[in-house]
Amino acid sequence: MAMVCLSDFEAHAKKYLPKIAWDYFAAGADDCTTRDENILAYKRIRFRPRMLRDVSVVDIKTKILGSEISFPVGIAPTGFHQLAWPDGEKSTARAARAMDTCYIASTYSTCTLEEISAAAPGGLRWFQLYIHRNRAASQQLVQRAEALGFQGLVLTADLPYTGKRRDDVRNGFRLPPHMKVKNLERAFEVCKMSPLDPSVTWNDIYWLRSLTRLPIIIKGILTREDAELAVRHGVQGIIVSNHGGRQLDEGPATIDALVEVVEAVRGRVEVYVDGGIRKGSDVLKALALGAKCVFIGRPALWGLAYKGEEGLQDVLRILQDEFRLSMALAG
Amino acid sequence: MAMVCLSDFEAHAKKYLPKIAWDYFAAGADDCTTRDENILAYKRIRFRPRMLRDVSVVDIKTKILGSEISFPVGIAPTGFHQLAWPDGEKSTARAARAMDTCYIASTYSTCTLEEISAAAPGGLRWFQLYIHRNRAASQQLVQRAEALGFQGLVLTADLPYTGKRRDDVRNGFRLPPHMKVKNLERAFEVCKMSPLDPSVTWNDIYWLRSLTRLPIIIKGILTREDAELAVRHGVQGIIVSNHGGRQLDEGPATIDALVEVVEAVRGRVEVYVDGGIRKGSDVLKALALGAKCVFIGRPALWGLAYKGEEGLQDVLRILQDEFRLSMALAG
Amino acid sequence: MAMVCLSDFEAHAKKYLPKIAWDYFAAGADDCTTRDENILAYKRIRFRPRMLRDVSVVDIKTKILGSEISFPVGIAPTGFHQLAWPDGEKSTARAARAMDTCYIASTYSTCTLEEISAAAPGGLRWFQLYIHRNRAASQQLVQRAEALGFQGLVLTADLPYTGKRRDDVRNGFRLPPHMKVKNLERAFEVCKMSPLDPSVTWNDIYWLRSLTRLPIIIKGILTREDAELAVRHGVQGIIVSNHGGRQLDEGPATIDALVEVVEAVRGRVEVYVDGGIRKGSDVLKALALGAKCVFIGRPALWGLAYKGEEGLQDVLRILQDEFRLSMALAG
Amino acid sequence: MAMVCLSDFEAHAKKYLPKIAWDYFAAGADDCTTRDENILAYKRIRFRPRMLRDVSVVDIKTKILGSEISFPVGIAPTGFHQLAWPDGEKSTARAARAMDTCYIASTYSTCTLEEISAAAPGGLRWFQLYIHRNRAASQQLVQRAEALGFQGLVLTADLPYTGKRRDDVRNGFRLPPHMKVKNLERAFEVCKMSPLDPSVTWNDIYWLRSLTRLPIIIKGILTREDAELAVRHGVQGIIVSNHGGRQLDEGPATIDALVEVVEAVRGRVEVYVDGGIRKGSDVLKALALGAKCVFIGRPALWGLAYKGEEGLQDVLRILQDEFRLSMALAG
Repeated sequence: MAMVCLSDFEAHAKKYLPKIAWDYFAAGADDCTTRDENILAYKRIRFRPRMLRDVSVVDIKTKILGSEISFPVGIAPTGFHQLAWPDGEKSTARAARAMDTCYIASTYSTCTLEEISAAAPGGLRWFQLYIHRNRAASQQLVQRAEALGFQGLVLTADLPYTGKRRDDVRNGFRLPPHMKVKNLERAFEVCKMSPLDPSVTWNDIYWLRSLTRLPIIIKGILTREDAELAVRHGVQGIIVSNHGGRQLDEGPATIDALVEVVEAVRGRVEVYVDGGIRKGSDVLKALALGAKCVFIGRPALWGLAYKGEEGLQDVLRILQDEFRLSMALAG
Repeated sequence: MAMVCLSDFEAHAKKYLPKIAWDYFAAGADDCTTRDENILAYKRIRFRPRMLRDVSVVDIKTKILGSEISFPVGIAPTGFHQLAWPDGEKSTARAARAMDTCYIASTYSTCTLEEISAAAPGGLRWFQLYIHRNRAASQQLVQRAEALGFQGLVLTADLPYTGKRRDDVRNGFRLPPHMKVKNLERAFEVCKMSPLDPSVTWNDIYWLRSLTRLPIIIKGILTREDAELAVRHGVQGIIVSNHGGRQLDEGPATIDALVEVVEAVRGRVEVYVDGGIRKGSDVLKALALGAKCVFIGRPALWGLAYKGEEGLQDVLRILQDEFRLSMALAG
Repeated sequence: MAMVCLSDFEAHAKKYLPKIAWDYFAAGADDCTTRDENILAYKRIRFRPRMLRDVSVVDIKTKILGSEISFPVGIAPTGFHQLAWPDGEKSTARAARAMDTCYIASTYSTCTLEEISAAAPGGLRWFQLYIHRNRAASQQLVQRAEALGFQGLVLTADLPYTGKRRDDVRNGFRLPPHMKVKNLERAFEVCKMSPLDPSVTWNDIYWLRSLTRLPIIIKGILTREDAELAVRHGVQGIIVSNHGGRQLDEGPATIDALVEVVEAVRGRVEVYVDGGIRKGSDVLKALALGAKCVFIGRPALWGLAYKGEEGLQDVLRILQDEFRLSMALAG
Repeated sequence: MAMVCLSDFEAHAKKYLPKIAWDYFAAGADDCTTRDENILAYKRIRFRPRMLRDVSVVDIKTKILGSEISFPVGIAPTGFHQLAWPDGEKSTARAARAMDTCYIASTYSTCTLEEISAAAPGGLRWFQLYIHRNRAASQQLVQRAEALGFQGLVLTADLPYTGKRRDDVRNGFRLPPHMKVKNLERAFEVCKMSPLDPSVTWNDIYWLRSLTRLPIIIKGILTREDAELAVRHGVQGIIVSNHGGRQLDEGPATIDALVEVVEAVRGRVEVYVDGGIRKGSDVLKALALGAKCVFIGRPALWGLAYKGEEGLQDVLRILQDEFRLSMALAG
């Protein structure tokens, strides 16, 4: 089986992953409308290709918050990478470093932040945070990340409660006994009383700011009103995201929401987007609409599931080649 | 089989109900366009989710015509509940009371109003009325309902004649011999000369008013013009409804009609809606567009068909949980 | 098999007619886009149903060009009825008379005008004309029709050449040897050098006018410009038609074209429409958009194919019942 | 199997061509969205047919850059005709001459320009050029074409790099050993380091102009901005084209782009279009929207694959008959 495009990796993962793991990664909330809209919305956008421009040299490098990456595609935070590959997030970190891009490690990693750091020293990494009812636990995580050289703190804003993912309920999804959410002291158990704090508000940004000198990026913004609030509360970046359609179903596709967020932000902070990226031309569309960089979620997991670190590099390399070609063909 | 969402109950009912009963409950008029549109129209509506609001406490209680209910979902009037479950409307009444919500009992119940009242004393109930050619029969029904403690009178306006439901015609649908439309003296026979009066007009509201002190709610309004007439004729509430798509096919979806009705009514009376509610987020959409409460028809029957009173409670509880979660995730 | 709606007759005809005959009746030009659009366009139109009007008496009679018919549905001109039923157009004429409506007999009938007249004396009939290269033949037909008591002359304007119907070409469609286009002297042969005159223009309306005192109705108008020309050239009626999608593919659906034709005509002549009528509510939509009456083509043939005269009456009766019910339910 | 419409030839080619050749001809870039949009966009355009015009004589001849052709359909440049038929481009040239239309021979022909000229002396031919890194090679090709009597030079502007056609990558597509890109000295190898120059800009039009007196037609323009640039740089014609959807996916359909190009050009040069032509009525739509002539790509290859020169004539003759009929039926 030749791996020619990201859909090939998806088909492979669907075939070889245990059903419960595939279902968990694939899940969207309720009817999965938003999950699917993320992809369909890209297809509704049309290029206006320009011809006869000198495209013999195409520069695809960019910078996010001052750090250079080899092309504008990073790894979005997703949980439980050991479900996809035995080495879990260690492989993810190695692949991201090898491709010279940014990896956002999730609070719900199956490796510790220390293991992730040790696996790929020197790689550009941000840390994704959920604020817990136990604020001391969150504070400790932030400070561990900063000490380990993570260069950004990504606060996820769209998960006061976990969305209703029907297949996970049907499967009674939980981590297998030999995997742990190692960053948290007690084993994490999905679908029990959540340790996450649903009373978090904008003011908690100030609290976070007091804990760390890392830039704060807020993830999960979908409206101009919240974009304005984010800027006013002093974040350095915004990731337009609907959590891969796993939280509130029937909200907007992220590429559609990007437009209004970019307009509201007027360049004051960097804006990124995740959700629905399946081709290099999707990356180009997001950039043309104002994103500084995109992040991929599920496709990274399919890459891991294919061949670990090497498979994820394949995924990134395909996106990179497709993105470069799209740039050239669009003029 | 895990019952995770309302569609699971639908699949169960389709599998286990006798075909003639399933067909009767599922039927839409003509091509079933409006029946299906009721659902599709919800899917076209997009949320604008807001983040970082304190959603640690979500209050989902509401009041309809002054009575508190535990969440804004009641049971719409549908006929012949014994086709779904042996105890029929008695189970429906019990489930509604257990979940602390409102049940609108249909004229075409297979239990008497007295049996329904006795099954769940103290529950909040309204009575749904068709006006018959024999006005004395209708008058007697209204007065029985009032005496039994029903707290609202729902006049159905969209059934001067029965819509053409092809499968019912093919099946030669009629009630099995051991079931009766007990509220009416003679057994009710579908598809014969209808006892309903097609000459009913707005002036009959005045006649109804003269019979009872109960608030009058009119069901079946789909246009601003009729909403205005309803207010002028002194009703206390309006249920935007197209009878589940069982009457005139190719009219508007109820959630679309709700918008113009709410606009016309300008808060003078309460507005409710039924038709197409399948998820908690549908309830949230209806409320966001101005409904005070929604009513479910077919999903209640699927619940009954699953496990009677208990199955209906399951359906209501799922909707309640989904509604609460949607409220929280939408901010 | 219960015949409940017109689609049932369609399924029956598809199953029991010889393939070559079914294909001929079903054929649309090229990709059949317009044929199918005729139906889909009705589905896009939504009613605004009004409630609580006295619909105890619903009057569905109407008049076309001064003649009363029992409801606003007539039989459009279609050829070769013997392909559907041995008695051919004689059965059609009897069914139309029995249902008290108008039948437009085609030039390409497999019975003579005299046979048609004799089969159902006193029925309301119009005669459909193609103008032939041999004008004397056309003149003779017009005068025979007038002498036989036909009360209108329908000039088909959209067939200077026959549209490309792929299945007919594949099947090498031609009439079976025992059938003849009896109104014309020589047997009619499809797909050979057409006897029809492609040089006909608006001025030929004056020539027709000089031949007969019958009212002239022009069939095949789809634009406001041609509607204006038709009125100026003195026709008494316009049938908005695209020949059932059998001529130029990818023109407008007739119900869409009706709107602009009605607007252009401003009541100066009667406007009718054919194409895509499958339910009583379609008839109501056409009337609400300004048609005085509709005509059915293929459904009449399905009725004939089912049980000849009796089957066609069934079709008309179903449409009549559905139309009356739609009138009542729409208020 | 009767060959009635172009889709019949497509089905035949799909069935009988080797998979690798079929895939190569059928391929679109990425998800093939633009390839399919080229066709779908035609279906969204509706005629406004006019009636009762004298269509007894329909003149379908036209002129392109001063040369008369029998109808406004030419052969677009496509590569590797020997994959479809042993005689390759020689058959194409003969068929085009027999039907009295224009054939644009591709740089990537499997016959030399000399063989093509000798096969059909006197036929109207243009030569399609890619500019190579080795400019001398390109110059030599242009001068050979001019010397051989080619009457136009078509510069393809949309292929600085080859688009990503997934099936070709999967198949490892390359020419079979016994076929050669004979116009180039070394055998052409697909998917290796491209000999094409991605640094070509508008200024290279001036260089081309200096090499030849032939009119220059630019192929691949999709926007008004590039159309304006083309006119300003002195081209004689523009072919609106997206390379059959084989280059940048998710750009506009060519028939949609045609409208803005025609508007920008305001008659200063001739505008043509290719992509998605499958019926005579498509040709009429393109002409109605301002194209002087259309060119067919894949349908020509299907014709070749069916019966070589004779099969291609069949394809052209069907389009010609359909176009003439559409003209007549549209009035």
